Amino acid sequence: MMKNSDMRAFFVNQGQIDPEKYIRVEYTFESLTQPDLVAAHLCQEMSTAQWKRVDVDEDFRPDFAAKVIALESEEINQPSCPSLAKTTLPDYQQVFRVNVIIAYPYQNFGTKIPNLLTVLCGEGVFHAPFISSIRLMDIHFPDNFLADFQGPQFGISGLRDMLDIYDRPILLGVIKPNVGLPPIPFAELAYQAWLGGLDIAKEDEQMSDAAWSSLADRSKLLGEKRALAEKETGQKKIYLANVTDEINRILPLHDIAVKNGANAVMLNSMTTGISAMRMLRKHSRVPITSHFDLFGAMTQIPFHGVREVVFTKIQRLAGMDIMVYPGFSGRLKTTEEDILASVQACTEQMGNLKTTLPVPAGSQWAGSLETLYNKLQSIDFGIVPGRGVFNHPMGPKGGAVSLRQGWDAVKSGTPIVEYAQGHRELQLAVEMHRS
Amino acid sequence: MMKNSDMRAFFVNQGQIDPEKYIRVEYTFESLTQPDLVAAHLCQEMSTAQWKRVDVDEDFRPDFAAKVIALESEEINQPSCPSLAKTTLPDYQQVFRVNVIIAYPYQNFGTKIPNLLTVLCGEGVFHAPFISSIRLMDIHFPDNFLADFQGPQFGISGLRDMLDIYDRPILLGVIKPNVGLPPIPFAELAYQAWLGGLDIAKEDEQMSDAAWSSLADRSKLLGEKRALAEKETGQKKIYLANVTDEINRILPLHDIAVKNGANAVMLNSMTTGISAMRMLRKHSRVPITSHFDLFGAMTQIPFHGVREVVFTKIQRLAGMDIMVYPGFSGRLKTTEEDILASVQACTEQMGNLKTTLPVPAGSQWAGSLETLYNKLQSIDFGIVPGRGVFNHPMGPKGGAVSLRQGWDAVKSGTPIVEYAQGHRELQLAVEMHRS
Repeated sequence: MMKNSDMRAFFVNQGQIDPEKYIRVEYTFESLTQPDLVAAHLCQEMSTAQWKRVDVDEDFRPDFAAKVIALESEEINQPSCPSLAKTTLPDYQQVFRVNVIIAYPYQNFGTKIPNLLTVLCGEGVFHAPFISSIRLMDIHFPDNFLADFQGPQFGISGLRDMLDIYDRPILLGVIKPNVGLPPIPFAELAYQAWLGGLDIAKEDEQMSDAAWSSLADRSKLLGEKRALAEKETGQKKIYLANVTDEINRILPLHDIAVKNGANAVMLNSMTTGISAMRMLRKHSRVPITSHFDLFGAMTQIPFHGVREVVFTKIQRLAGMDIMVYPGFSGRLKTTEEDILASVQACTEQMGNLKTTLPVPAGSQWAGSLETLYNKLQSIDFGIVPGRGVFNHPMGPKGGAVSLRQGWDAVKSGTPIVEYAQGHRELQLAVEMHRS
Repeated sequence: MMKNSDMRAFFVNQGQIDPEKYIRVEYTFESLTQPDLVAAHLCQEMSTAQWKRVDVDEDFRPDFAAKVIALESEEINQPSCPSLAKTTLPDYQQVFRVNVIIAYPYQNFGTKIPNLLTVLCGEGVFHAPFISSIRLMDIHFPDNFLADFQGPQFGISGLRDMLDIYDRPILLGVIKPNVGLPPIPFAELAYQAWLGGLDIAKEDEQMSDAAWSSLADRSKLLGEKRALAEKETGQKKIYLANVTDEINRILPLHDIAVKNGANAVMLNSMTTGISAMRMLRKHSRVPITSHFDLFGAMTQIPFHGVREVVFTKIQRLAGMDIMVYPGFSGRLKTTEEDILASVQACTEQMGNLKTTLPVPAGSQWAGSLETLYNKLQSIDFGIVPGRGVFNHPMGPKGGAVSLRQGWDAVKSGTPIVEYAQGHRELQLAVEMHRS
């Protein structure tokens, strides 16, 4: 264990540091011994683990150590995961729940996403001694740090300009069936949904450049159908192609898809690395969406891992225009508080970065518009049903019509179920949702 | 809920499928209702969520659905994380612990790592309905799948050839202090450790191409010191440079470091994306190491997330020669069973792929060699102390000597503490470890 004199070097008053030089990081952890000492060990492990050479009079902590600027703790009866506590410290006697705010000097690594994740979510944090579980709760960047990032290219207002829609939420739909359906009928489904009033036809996160549906073939057909749908409806439409692939294939696939008529692209960004999104942002001239694969492994345990809002913020830095993430449904296993924290992270002031359109997703249908509008109290969001549009009894066109009717209901202040009575597509959607 | 007739399409007897077309995936999950039905939903969500178009007589499940090939379950008293169960299904009545083996048709996406992670650890898995927590336990690839991957370029035998060491474990050390120490004294520390008998001087996962220590400056000095150490000792030495950075900087940094004399490189591969390692493997002619940042957020909860062995295997596919990962110490929060599973995943037959050197790491010193040799029953491993070498009272040279003495003790069958009596460096290491 660290000596008391050493411990003090890992604490500082907020007023004593230059806020432009530090990232503020919030953790909640369970400590198996004295909280302030354990917080100091955490800071040590995530920065200057050994702060001097043997037999040299020096100390790297003033400039390079992570430092606690706020700490509160309470003793609790037992750890949230007793088996993990036993592995960590077999003979622990006490457990504390500790909230800390840590100031991290980002000169340690600069303004690079992989290195940021290394210090915030690395060995130093998840394997710090005497900590049985730890959750990265939030992160706040100084403007100096933010200035090195491009952020979203379009943001909410750019997306609205692209679609020429200013008075309602954006209607996305995940084209289904997807896995197994060849490009020709796949493109036809998107076309039908566009005709019905869908704004953005989005490829599923599981879609890829596969032998049974190459992105080249698929995007050509979707691009043609998008042009046709725009002509027939007089409305702007977006085809959102999934370009998730090995790192060296992302930009080539982007180029193929965009040349063929995709006017937005998606990355499953934790599976490629969020840095790949930053690379794509530098290259692309179309909006970028993210899908949340791999997040569940980190975000769902309430006392461990990483709170989703952290990834929302880092992806906004990286250039994400549209944030698809777990929304209001038990299946999505995300609390209302966490969902709304990500909405705020998408839209709040963040240096000079543009905003990101929040799309709290999962198991949606026309009726979800009511929920989303009530929870968010804003029209600046997207909805992204899959089966709710594409498995509609009248097909994707009817499904898309039901979305438009759903919004009409919300706009007129009429409950969905009541409004549905005079609107067949919405009525069928209500019945499908009930069954 | 799915109908019973639909459910059956997600079950198959192992003998009915071509094993070369399927990845076998093992999950353990907690189910809030009927286990077989929930397993079918899991398969549905991770593959063909909607398996037919409206009003079309078709079924994509035979060719494209994930399918359960084995299932066992038992009712348990309560979920491991009750709050998560309540979010998932507020009025749950029963809880089952379920083990399944699922056959996944990899033609769905091909042989690409981000897309593999999408299906195995994506929305379909971590947000499958009626599942309150789920852990990806293991994965088994058919030879057809493996054939598309290069795997390690060197493997254990290639590393041994490089170092000309055939009769003992490989001695790595993490150069410390690291964060804050300028390149000149940093290189001197590595030099001293090499003189003392260290084989591989490794940069910490927090080292980067930073303003206060550019990789260009640092690697030039380290490269020179490596050549000098080889000349003075007559032994082969490795300098392992950390090239973790934004995606587009990884290959340029690799080139700079290798040109300057780095003869191995490291990626913090989950922070860059494992695909970045595959990219690096295609480009590089030196061994590649991985560090386990971000894994703790996914691997530590025993009933949720991803078991480390899965990442071990995927990184071996990607080309990892040396696997640094959490080893035998409470702080590392990893069970002995899981540590040994990764050792096996590094060294077992896996198509025609070369092996990976396992380095179960964390808080190590000379005495850890005894533990490692006893647990692994092999000399095919690495040890990687940081402070155990570089904070040794006699400095890094003495620290490295203590490692050599530690191995001499193991080789002679003498307990470390006993052997230390005649060996000053080891004696001091024992005393430092005790304090």
